[in-house]
Amino acid sequence: MGSIFGTVFRVTTFGESHGGAVGVVVEGCPPGLSLRVEEIQKELDRRRPGQSPLVSTRSEPDRAEILSGLFEGKTLGTPIAIVVRNRDARSRDYLPFKNLYRPSHADYTYEAKYGIRNWAGGGRASARETVARVAAGAVARKVLSRYARVEILAWVSRVADLEAEVDPERVSLRRVEQNPVRCPDRRAAEQMIELIQQVQRSGDSVGGTVDCVARSVPPGLGEPVFDKLEADLAKAMLSLPASKSFEIGSGLAGTYLPGSEHNDAFYSEGGRIRTVTNRSGGIQGGISNGEPIHLRVGFKPVATILQPQMTVDRKGRKRKLLPRGRHDPCVLPRAVPIVEAMMALVLCDHFLRQKAVRFD
Amino acid sequence: MGSIFGTVFRVTTFGESHGGAVGVVVEGCPPGLSLRVEEIQKELDRRRPGQSPLVSTRSEPDRAEILSGLFEGKTLGTPIAIVVRNRDARSRDYLPFKNLYRPSHADYTYEAKYGIRNWAGGGRASARETVARVAAGAVARKVLSRYARVEILAWVSRVADLEAEVDPERVSLRRVEQNPVRCPDRRAAEQMIELIQQVQRSGDSVGGTVDCVARSVPPGLGEPVFDKLEADLAKAMLSLPASKSFEIGSGLAGTYLPGSEHNDAFYSEGGRIRTVTNRSGGIQGGISNGEPIHLRVGFKPVATILQPQMTVDRKGRKRKLLPRGRHDPCVLPRAVPIVEAMMALVLCDHFLRQKAVRFD
Amino acid sequence: MGSIFGTVFRVTTFGESHGGAVGVVVEGCPPGLSLRVEEIQKELDRRRPGQSPLVSTRSEPDRAEILSGLFEGKTLGTPIAIVVRNRDARSRDYLPFKNLYRPSHADYTYEAKYGIRNWAGGGRASARETVARVAAGAVARKVLSRYARVEILAWVSRVADLEAEVDPERVSLRRVEQNPVRCPDRRAAEQMIELIQQVQRSGDSVGGTVDCVARSVPPGLGEPVFDKLEADLAKAMLSLPASKSFEIGSGLAGTYLPGSEHNDAFYSEGGRIRTVTNRSGGIQGGISNGEPIHLRVGFKPVATILQPQMTVDRKGRKRKLLPRGRHDPCVLPRAVPIVEAMMALVLCDHFLRQKAVRFD
Amino acid sequence: MGSIFGTVFRVTTFGESHGGAVGVVVEGCPPGLSLRVEEIQKELDRRRPGQSPLVSTRSEPDRAEILSGLFEGKTLGTPIAIVVRNRDARSRDYLPFKNLYRPSHADYTYEAKYGIRNWAGGGRASARETVARVAAGAVARKVLSRYARVEILAWVSRVADLEAEVDPERVSLRRVEQNPVRCPDRRAAEQMIELIQQVQRSGDSVGGTVDCVARSVPPGLGEPVFDKLEADLAKAMLSLPASKSFEIGSGLAGTYLPGSEHNDAFYSEGGRIRTVTNRSGGIQGGISNGEPIHLRVGFKPVATILQPQMTVDRKGRKRKLLPRGRHDPCVLPRAVPIVEAMMALVLCDHFLRQKAVRFD
Repeated sequence: MGSIFGTVFRVTTFGESHGGAVGVVVEGCPPGLSLRVEEIQKELDRRRPGQSPLVSTRSEPDRAEILSGLFEGKTLGTPIAIVVRNRDARSRDYLPFKNLYRPSHADYTYEAKYGIRNWAGGGRASARETVARVAAGAVARKVLSRYARVEILAWVSRVADLEAEVDPERVSLRRVEQNPVRCPDRRAAEQMIELIQQVQRSGDSVGGTVDCVARSVPPGLGEPVFDKLEADLAKAMLSLPASKSFEIGSGLAGTYLPGSEHNDAFYSEGGRIRTVTNRSGGIQGGISNGEPIHLRVGFKPVATILQPQMTVDRKGRKRKLLPRGRHDPCVLPRAVPIVEAMMALVLCDHFLRQKAVRFD
Repeated sequence: MGSIFGTVFRVTTFGESHGGAVGVVVEGCPPGLSLRVEEIQKELDRRRPGQSPLVSTRSEPDRAEILSGLFEGKTLGTPIAIVVRNRDARSRDYLPFKNLYRPSHADYTYEAKYGIRNWAGGGRASARETVARVAAGAVARKVLSRYARVEILAWVSRVADLEAEVDPERVSLRRVEQNPVRCPDRRAAEQMIELIQQVQRSGDSVGGTVDCVARSVPPGLGEPVFDKLEADLAKAMLSLPASKSFEIGSGLAGTYLPGSEHNDAFYSEGGRIRTVTNRSGGIQGGISNGEPIHLRVGFKPVATILQPQMTVDRKGRKRKLLPRGRHDPCVLPRAVPIVEAMMALVLCDHFLRQKAVRFD
Repeated sequence: MGSIFGTVFRVTTFGESHGGAVGVVVEGCPPGLSLRVEEIQKELDRRRPGQSPLVSTRSEPDRAEILSGLFEGKTLGTPIAIVVRNRDARSRDYLPFKNLYRPSHADYTYEAKYGIRNWAGGGRASARETVARVAAGAVARKVLSRYARVEILAWVSRVADLEAEVDPERVSLRRVEQNPVRCPDRRAAEQMIELIQQVQRSGDSVGGTVDCVARSVPPGLGEPVFDKLEADLAKAMLSLPASKSFEIGSGLAGTYLPGSEHNDAFYSEGGRIRTVTNRSGGIQGGISNGEPIHLRVGFKPVATILQPQMTVDRKGRKRKLLPRGRHDPCVLPRAVPIVEAMMALVLCDHFLRQKAVRFD
Repeated sequence: MGSIFGTVFRVTTFGESHGGAVGVVVEGCPPGLSLRVEEIQKELDRRRPGQSPLVSTRSEPDRAEILSGLFEGKTLGTPIAIVVRNRDARSRDYLPFKNLYRPSHADYTYEAKYGIRNWAGGGRASARETVARVAAGAVARKVLSRYARVEILAWVSRVADLEAEVDPERVSLRRVEQNPVRCPDRRAAEQMIELIQQVQRSGDSVGGTVDCVARSVPPGLGEPVFDKLEADLAKAMLSLPASKSFEIGSGLAGTYLPGSEHNDAFYSEGGRIRTVTNRSGGIQGGISNGEPIHLRVGFKPVATILQPQMTVDRKGRKRKLLPRGRHDPCVLPRAVPIVEAMMALVLCDHFLRQKAVRFD
């Protein structure tokens, strides 16, 4: 009972990593919108494992099928169901973990909560469930581009302590996609790639941060006091596997500044109210102000490492874990389209919510 | 349309800072629970302005009145309405801001969203609305202490760059409340107080972080994949005025570590599965694991400063803002009970949600 | 956990019949709407006990106070809290029922559910809680009249077997309010009044039906497949105390007809698609079609009667119930404004929901 | 945005009658429950067209596939996705209706609402969407039988004016299923069958009522004041295609009685509080009292008839409709498993909601 997200634009996801399928039902999508399965597929391909040497070699074609909600290429305003079958599910690889709790995985907590666990591949806790989010996000982006010209873009901003320099107002998709680590700062990208490959060789893993910006967001999105825009964004991002931190605008760095340096002064430009700086990250009082929405998500190093670890089994007996299976040494490059999808889901939902009560 | 929080334990808040009242309706509270208005009042008093020289001098007695849901000292299982009248509302103080947009305040965005704004005191965007959260949080704490022995405690962990050293497993309420800055590290507290007073004299403001821990939380709370426990906590904290960042467990620092150092090894202690370290912050895969839940919230420096600032008026004309009115140079000490309240609301809701579907 | 109604226009009600107050928080009301407390008071006065010899003599002034959400006579788009204090609460009258279960009342089920009961006056199960619905309904009507010219009107259509003849397309408020039984068919009204007075003298009670029509509803309201317009109306009406049945359009009578007689043929009138007959009751496939929405609600005879009845006490012991206290021999006249309020709440919510996803 | 039903046990349905598939995601199902696809299939087979000469000859095998939420025959506590492919979709049959509005169908209102319509077969407004409800209902029944021994049973109680005599306390599944019209009164059943066949020959259709009873429901289910048990049941039933009326307990007939005859006297039986009569229909004050829950739903005659009808096209031009295609002359027999499914969904959701807040 936690697989529904959104208030007006509501998505319900389902699926374990090694079961029949993962998928999503998108509810509340406005009618009459052009939508092709290829537009969803394109985003899934960016998330897919096996796309570069840096990520998991699990080979999943991840073909999306739309089961409902479309007619002659247009949305009907009815629920859009999208399904992606699981193919390359080597459940046997997980047999050794059947009775063990892998450190910093969800094995123990799923059992504590549900009393039962799909031990074959991480089940619902697997990052595979994000397939459904990315598919839904592709629909949300269509809505956002239909009504406004919202542009959403994420990138890897740091790997371990390798920090990139990127201007959120100017960064482009082309620059992000030009290298497999999805870091638009080419120099930093090269170092990151080197580090990830080195970590992979040593059977270890690394974390870092992903930045995401949404440009051309209309002012007025966000519903105080609980459903403030940054609150729903924080929830969206912290619901992602492996995420540990969320920052909006100036973020943690901004909490070191005095107010006299931190405040964003207003000015007027062509009849539009703007701010000189954007430490607010495009949101003030929980509501978008028209400046780029800029956030940062921290991801921990992947829990799956190819080194022996101490743990316990279901009976609490001390056991040595000898890891097997495939893993990503660093989730960050694949997290990029997922973070974008979550940004799209939140903005789309808030766009429609604002549309509901806006006094025309 | 964003003033309802929670799924089973649902709170609806209302009220502007300078209107009739602020208040809350708590829905979904189990019946038969002892509850006295004094228990709510105690928490309101910790949040109240005017309690120390470090905070706003606005003098509000903030007397809670319970209008429903109680009978002979016990909850009825029906909605509990709690109202706090606004008293010391000097609306005139705000007249000069009627047509101006104060930098990094919500003046402009509220107008952009609603087309109307209660300019007398910040309206719904004022931190005064957190009175309702604290009142509801007091009820949530009663539920949590009735069913489990959950203990929730927050403290100021950093002011500007003055960092405290605190052990989240051992810190006590007594230590937190022993000084007006609510920092249990006495040495750091003294420096913080000095800094805040100095900032106050210069008409400026400072930010920092508040840490919060919940101990004795039963394993199994949290509803993947969207309503993961840390996701709802992140939303709760980012819905607070002036919050800019959220970290769970090892947080941002953890994203610099390799997996081999970051993973929390399991061990067994008296039949209970535990972890040697707690970089997970008490949550794995979105579900509590029985270790202390530990999070950190960053607050920006207060936007109200007593220095002249450049801004624009409603017509976009350049204007100089000459601040007046009362303000907190640093919200952190008063944020402590508010952060605790939000932690309580999230845990209580998830406790009841888990109770609904737990297979007995 | 059932005191919130609506999806976008959400109302949260609270209050027992003999406690501090009853009230409501209206969330999701569009900003910039003129609203005066008198407009709410007017509807409360229609619901109020003591307004005529036909209804309960409980003397409640029922003065509404607006605590939030308004500024200079306009809605702010923030939650509107409305409170009505309980005054004439003679709890002692209920002392004899403290340990008895009154037949066809909610005494037993409240105890079975909550393990505790406010025995002083029916608590939350009292019809007094409808004060909150009527207050919220007054706000909903303002929204509906601002955006469309929706006109909502209810009347008593039957008392016991005394049936009125009323044309739902032409009936007017003036005709409804011209007699205390609120039946626009003057002849039937006279008979109804006589019957009710006779029933009152014998210490008994009677039921009947209330009809409600909403005219000038725009086509397109209703959200298949679960939140069909008639589904939400049925829920709204069956949530009222003492209601036993719901019919839309041709209702139960229509289920006796063959399809060839029941179908509503379409025709075109001035560019607008209309139906010759309106057996659909203004709703087809769960969506309004622009014709008047016409429904009927059945109310049972009030459970409180002034005759001795057999029952049991909390220990299951056989007991004779000697009724005391005030009661309405027939709830129908006072149900009229309440049914209108529920119609308004549902239409307003669906109007805003449709606004959210309508492709402009 | 109306395809999600329930609060804790939440179902999301999707699918048009002539698209890829219809299906449902069941969220909030407790873990550890045995569930086999055959149990779902059994209920789908009862709903399936082509099962008897009385119903539509559309030939759909309606094979259910479970895509997620199960592991080794048990529920995981994660979303259960169930999909049924559409097979026998003769879209060409509907071509003549592409630009016409069929009387008392949803063609016009879907276009008015969404601006687009899947004209091939009724789209989302087709009764085919109830496949998803029946599948979800089968899961709900498993939950109810696991926790309590709730037994749910529906039957055809009237066709046109042919009324059956059935004792809701004793009627059995065997008696219901013994004839194709699903009426346990054998004599009435024969007359009904004859009438339906005669109506079918004349190209017309008939309506009537379905009764449903739930036995062994524990006391305490239902969440006043809006989510009263009968309110959610009314919504569930009025959300079904072609339903026009809802009655609980004594229903409409009860509104003709005086209170002195209508009240249900309490007595004690083996330590359990019971009522002598059951005019309350098992629900008092919105909460189950342990007696059988008994309700009645009225269904209009099917709108599709095989007779020429006058209507208009999309431009409002007068047109003659010459019907084609397959149709049920009477939906009642197939409505039986659907009404049972909706009863199960409501009871299951309320059972889990009550579990959440029950003070143990």
